[in-house]
Amino acid sequence: MDAIILSIGSELALGETIDTNSAWLAQRLAEIGVGVLRHVTVGDDIEPIRRQIEQACGEADVVLITGGLGPTADDLTRQALAAAMGVELVLRPEWVEKIRSFFACRGRSMPQANAIQAQFPAGSEPIENTCGTAPGIRASLGRSMVFAMPGVPREMREMFERDVRPMLAERTGGAVLIATVLNCFGAGESDIGQQIDDLMQRGRNPTVGTTAKQGVIGVRIHSRGRSAAEARKLLEATEQEVRRRLGTLIYGRDSETLSDAVARLLVEGGKTVSVAESCTGGLIAKRLTDVPGSSRYFRAGLVTYANEAKTMWLGVPADLIAGHGAVSEPVARAMAEACRRLNATDYAIGVTGIAGPEGGTADKPVGLVFISLADAAGCRVTRHLFGDFLNRGEIRERAASTAMNLLRLRLMARGGQACSA
Amino acid sequence: MDAIILSIGSELALGETIDTNSAWLAQRLAEIGVGVLRHVTVGDDIEPIRRQIEQACGEADVVLITGGLGPTADDLTRQALAAAMGVELVLRPEWVEKIRSFFACRGRSMPQANAIQAQFPAGSEPIENTCGTAPGIRASLGRSMVFAMPGVPREMREMFERDVRPMLAERTGGAVLIATVLNCFGAGESDIGQQIDDLMQRGRNPTVGTTAKQGVIGVRIHSRGRSAAEARKLLEATEQEVRRRLGTLIYGRDSETLSDAVARLLVEGGKTVSVAESCTGGLIAKRLTDVPGSSRYFRAGLVTYANEAKTMWLGVPADLIAGHGAVSEPVARAMAEACRRLNATDYAIGVTGIAGPEGGTADKPVGLVFISLADAAGCRVTRHLFGDFLNRGEIRERAASTAMNLLRLRLMARGGQACSA
Repeated sequence: MDAIILSIGSELALGETIDTNSAWLAQRLAEIGVGVLRHVTVGDDIEPIRRQIEQACGEADVVLITGGLGPTADDLTRQALAAAMGVELVLRPEWVEKIRSFFACRGRSMPQANAIQAQFPAGSEPIENTCGTAPGIRASLGRSMVFAMPGVPREMREMFERDVRPMLAERTGGAVLIATVLNCFGAGESDIGQQIDDLMQRGRNPTVGTTAKQGVIGVRIHSRGRSAAEARKLLEATEQEVRRRLGTLIYGRDSETLSDAVARLLVEGGKTVSVAESCTGGLIAKRLTDVPGSSRYFRAGLVTYANEAKTMWLGVPADLIAGHGAVSEPVARAMAEACRRLNATDYAIGVTGIAGPEGGTADKPVGLVFISLADAAGCRVTRHLFGDFLNRGEIRERAASTAMNLLRLRLMARGGQACSA
Repeated sequence: MDAIILSIGSELALGETIDTNSAWLAQRLAEIGVGVLRHVTVGDDIEPIRRQIEQACGEADVVLITGGLGPTADDLTRQALAAAMGVELVLRPEWVEKIRSFFACRGRSMPQANAIQAQFPAGSEPIENTCGTAPGIRASLGRSMVFAMPGVPREMREMFERDVRPMLAERTGGAVLIATVLNCFGAGESDIGQQIDDLMQRGRNPTVGTTAKQGVIGVRIHSRGRSAAEARKLLEATEQEVRRRLGTLIYGRDSETLSDAVARLLVEGGKTVSVAESCTGGLIAKRLTDVPGSSRYFRAGLVTYANEAKTMWLGVPADLIAGHGAVSEPVARAMAEACRRLNATDYAIGVTGIAGPEGGTADKPVGLVFISLADAAGCRVTRHLFGDFLNRGEIRERAASTAMNLLRLRLMARGGQACSA
């Protein structure tokens, strides 16, 4: 089986938005053994959309379309599909009701414009959208099964996973490609690459590759087999080998985040945490509370951004700040220690640094961040330089990830030894 | 003039790498008035590449190709282009020397494989690559000018800016397409669409369209003119009309965020802000400090996640929490009022809600959020229901955006009238 992926939208064709749907879909198709002949992006223009649908349906077994199902005048996928099928759009009153009740659940009445989303090409079938108002469309045209899905990634992904993938998987039978990603933090991509160099050779099955994003290195493993069991077995052997070599650099797999890993360790150990932040401005508290059930371990965060706030809320002596500067080892230490004591938590994180773009000096450049971690055994402060080639947002993200990772490693050391800088 | 963009590479077709080249090129083409008919991505397979080149050359004035010019066996763009042109590849010895000297400059000798990069379809012209080994190719085929460029973004961009853009700009003779996006918050896409329905009709210049992402509705305006001045004038007239209709729903343009808008208003007014958060867990503090120079207006954030933290840090009476629940109008009010008083800021935001997925009841469902905003005139609390079709992360983002937007509107009311729920 092979597929063509069409993405519809002038914001995509004009390059204002980068299409991530097509790549995501191509990966999912690979997992069920469906090859991709091409991706095509066209703007909100009915004739080109229709032509691309017709052409694709002459070539591929499966045509996946994303976008152009919204309620406004520039959403033309359903019209183009009907034109390609040579049929009319038909209003399905029961789907008007579904859309109406979607709005009603949110305490709103349905704008009249949304009724068009209940129109479908004659002979096609609606696909339910559980996260938005635009139903998808399933149709047959030429030799192809056609699936039109919303362009909003979350809605599209949910619809694909729930309805489209099972329908496709049923038809493919046989060869299976499965994938996993091991997420690492604490070393660079080339360092990690060197440790698994031999596993990354071309032609190997499973294949192993790396990706890097905001300090997180993903080690991707793709395994191919004649059956799911065979592919799984091959994948597990390679995964074990990668884990053996990278050890605690690996914090999780697939969609697991550092927050997930830290949350799991805190809950398992029955431990609590609080945080005192300056340059990260609330980002670490946000990361710690990203995870459902975070009230089990997270007590409070103090975003003491101004110097006076550090003194008022955490009792950091004003002369300590005056003497060493707010971005200093002693201030970071005082922040975490006070935070832990005042909130009565097992652990406390403190962060102070210069996120830029202003405020750097030769002595204390943009990207300099002190991270403190206090527990019953004491408080350890580490100094980090996140490099002035990163922008403000990236420095803040990197500092937050580093703090989360320090907490993760401390938690993994299980009550561990006393530590003092 | 119009263009088709082809990107070549199995890593793109398989979705392992997201194609950013096509979007970047589309934006550059728009700047010089070249419209984009479509983008097409195909894998490293000679026949499909050839077919896409032939098809594109029958339709567009310009065909831009990226990728497939490397030295390895899976790089097939030059062969496919030669096949489409019906000519042979010809070795140009002077380009072998150029490639050899590229390596020599880096203290390396040229691998034999790289010699193929000095082969070009007969009748085509090489384009110099100053950052890599792969020269580009310029050719004519059918009605089209064809430019093949490397897939490495840095090399492609440099080649486009230096050689391709000037050649194209020369031909367009002035026609210009310019674009802007007006970012809105506070109404849905269909509500906004209805207010500018007539401006969104097809065939109009400028064109107007909408996009939606996390509650932010972007109104895109694209204007086409024979000169930059003409395009600008048309765009301004439409922008003015959109602004007249949407008023304060519009918070900024292009890449401006709600944080930027709020920061600008706070700085302009010389005002300060603090925040007391529960369910958003630090996200609002993070948003307020996203902007460089935020120390001018942001004092402190209290992430009082646990009930005891609300009492300890903000003095919210424990019996108020016991009587009304932590997620309630009186608790939200107490949070903002205490936060403003303790931090001595002009404004304070308080947020308490249920981000889920657990913790909802029939009475207080997941997605219920109270947002309070205190200033000298009093404190107003609003109740929001973000809909249980949103996930935890989205509810938190939406609550933070709504709080930022309430602050924005209050700041725009310029000291305004007293307000109390």
